[in-house]
Amino acid sequence: MSRRAKGCVYLVGAGPGDPGLLTLRAARLLADADTVVHDRLVHPAVLEHARPHARILYVGKEGGGESVRQEDIHTLLIAQARLGRSVVRLKGGDPFVFGRGGEEALALEAAGIPYEVVPGVSSLAAVPAAAAIPITHRGVSGSVTFATAHRTEGAPDWAHLARAETLVLFMAGGRLDETTHALMSAGRAPTTPTAVVEAGTWEHQRVLEAPLSGIAREAREADVGSPALLVVGEVVSLRSQLRSLAQRP
Amino acid sequence: MSRRAKGCVYLVGAGPGDPGLLTLRAARLLADADTVVHDRLVHPAVLEHARPHARILYVGKEGGGESVRQEDIHTLLIAQARLGRSVVRLKGGDPFVFGRGGEEALALEAAGIPYEVVPGVSSLAAVPAAAAIPITHRGVSGSVTFATAHRTEGAPDWAHLARAETLVLFMAGGRLDETTHALMSAGRAPTTPTAVVEAGTWEHQRVLEAPLSGIAREAREADVGSPALLVVGEVVSLRSQLRSLAQRP
Repeated sequence: MSRRAKGCVYLVGAGPGDPGLLTLRAARLLADADTVVHDRLVHPAVLEHARPHARILYVGKEGGGESVRQEDIHTLLIAQARLGRSVVRLKGGDPFVFGRGGEEALALEAAGIPYEVVPGVSSLAAVPAAAAIPITHRGVSGSVTFATAHRTEGAPDWAHLARAETLVLFMAGGRLDETTHALMSAGRAPTTPTAVVEAGTWEHQRVLEAPLSGIAREAREADVGSPALLVVGEVVSLRSQLRSLAQRP
Repeated sequence: MSRRAKGCVYLVGAGPGDPGLLTLRAARLLADADTVVHDRLVHPAVLEHARPHARILYVGKEGGGESVRQEDIHTLLIAQARLGRSVVRLKGGDPFVFGRGGEEALALEAAGIPYEVVPGVSSLAAVPAAAAIPITHRGVSGSVTFATAHRTEGAPDWAHLARAETLVLFMAGGRLDETTHALMSAGRAPTTPTAVVEAGTWEHQRVLEAPLSGIAREAREADVGSPALLVVGEVVSLRSQLRSLAQRP
């Protein structure tokens, strides 16, 4: 990989939350950045890697909505780079996994701004792991499908998602009823072991477990908020055998 | 997360190859480990985080086969922990994504050995990213399915895999013909943009791109080896728009 440079934008994955899951390269780039542009799902301790005088700009999104328009983020990144600054664009998880990093990369490419992508630990595997759920397991699941429950266009292919050996869904608040019904209507057994992980790897992580038919009610009663992941499949039942992992808060 | 401790086994993801993609927590655990047990797909520079006098034990697997039986790895981890050592079990990518980390966790749980899981950057997203392929992209792909082409039992559900918006397959050597034919027989269009990424994020990374119907021949002619990922879906065509990323070696 090339060395960090002025006028360059680094699209960097910050990992799922736990600041220990930041990569070495991300920490070095942060320590050298003039400008850091970050989302809501970045742990405050991650930002402490930045220099005291770096500009820290928050462009976070709340729930499904956006507080700063995507186009305005592009304009901001391009403007900061054109000022000759080294810019770290820090995203929760991984920039290319439901992170809109591709859109930002295309905008930078079109503007002729040098950029790099620095992958991060994606929530998709790390959050189930933090809940003692291996998303693949020999003899239980040999594939995993990741999707988001809040697409901007079209409906998800529920028939495909229902057939996944392991299904991991990014949830926006309040769609669990709709989502679990859609999966059952598309043929997924109501008894399928299911978990919801709220704020996975963060200090306030919570895990709920129930059959697919009951998880939405469990989550509603527990007042589960965002971010949350839904994990559907027989791998969820491994939690009960990985007791010492599952007992972590 | 609890502090590192003697007699504890840490199942740690080493990331896809590039040593900069190691996590901060993995680096700290390595620096404190008495014993490090690692696979073939761990970059030598990652092992340099270990103390000079740490025991470094190689239990790597070549291709699809195993050089050390999985049960013997369990026995080794348990024995090292019972000697009161702090043991880092270092795996390429993420321990719970086709890494058999679940099996090792179950063995440790059954033996009453304390253990933790430290997620890593998974190859599944990071390797396509290193080839300038965002695995999800608004308006192009809102879900991604990961699978392995070398299952130990049963055949993959090709109908499900063929219907994935983005499909990422871990390849063992020499199955590309079989795999691409199975996908086309199950209904995937022969013209679907497809890439093979060999040794993704490593210094010797190579990327080949072709329609699904032609990628196996391309890979054979280029003598692609292991490890390799197959990426199938319209997102592959974004490479041509992300030129400055794609031009990285």
